[in-house]
Amino acid sequence: MAFSKGMVAFTREQEALVLDAWNEMKDDAATIGLNFYLRIFEIVPSARKKFSFLSDSDEPLSKNPKLKAHAMNVFVMTCESATMLRKTGKVTVGNITLKKLGGVHTKAGVAGLHFEVLKFALLETIKEAVPYMWSPEMEEAWGVAYDHLAAAIQAEM
Amino acid sequence: MAFSKGMVAFTREQEALVLDAWNEMKDDAATIGLNFYLRIFEIVPSARKKFSFLSDSDEPLSKNPKLKAHAMNVFVMTCESATMLRKTGKVTVGNITLKKLGGVHTKAGVAGLHFEVLKFALLETIKEAVPYMWSPEMEEAWGVAYDHLAAAIQAEM
Repeated sequence: MAFSKGMVAFTREQEALVLDAWNEMKDDAATIGLNFYLRIFEIVPSARKKFSFLSDSDEPLSKNPKLKAHAMNVFVMTCESATMLRKTGKVTVGNITLKKLGGVHTKAGVAGLHFEVLKFALLETIKEAVPYMWSPEMEEAWGVAYDHLAAAIQAEM
Repeated sequence: MAFSKGMVAFTREQEALVLDAWNEMKDDAATIGLNFYLRIFEIVPSARKKFSFLSDSDEPLSKNPKLKAHAMNVFVMTCESATMLRKTGKVTVGNITLKKLGGVHTKAGVAGLHFEVLKFALLETIKEAVPYMWSPEMEEAWGVAYDHLAAAIQAEM
């Protein structure tokens, strides 16, 4: 396949590195999602204020269904991003979805730095969840898939 | 000692937890300072662009004397902050120094999030450098001393 400007070569092996890790993790998604956000809040405590459903709720973080849903979205959309990159060389979430995501993140005052911290926390969380699968190649595959998803969202902000 | 608004009680023991760790680390300050910044750049890669002396220089990061100097400033000023907090309950770096620091950080486009990431990286770096001394109390003492220093700089931004 030839790639035009802005397209990347993302192999079937890289896609598998992303999907295999997620398949391994998803039965334990609630705990892993919680660890993911606890790590983000450890690095940038102020990020907690970006989630309206956290300030609205008295539920402990570990029981908050919306936090789990948000974490799932990050994992699942990164997986979808990997598949799109392999198939088409770019990430094109449905226009309406992307505009909505762009709007939600803009409204919450999410900055480029948040996307960077989230990437770091995401990779660290996967590394801790499936240490026996982890490799530099897996880190690279998740990193590239996430970067393209984040760029697509930020382009709508 | 009575504390008025904005003043904190910072004990002699807390000051010692900060100074003792730094005394233990300072002979190895070059390596520890480098680890400190590598960790920051791992979490937020874009932070590298905030250091003009990094983009101006072809020297490897590990040999860059200005990076080491900047890291030393963070460690030494946090120690000074601890001593000031213990003595006076607040951080008052000389007015001119604070204004200068505020100006430099504003010019570099440093945001509140950078100060948060730096704190996380600072604590992780100390924990790794002196694991045999590390404790929740030491983490708290360094954290409080750093928070007050960061707030004093940000107040001038």
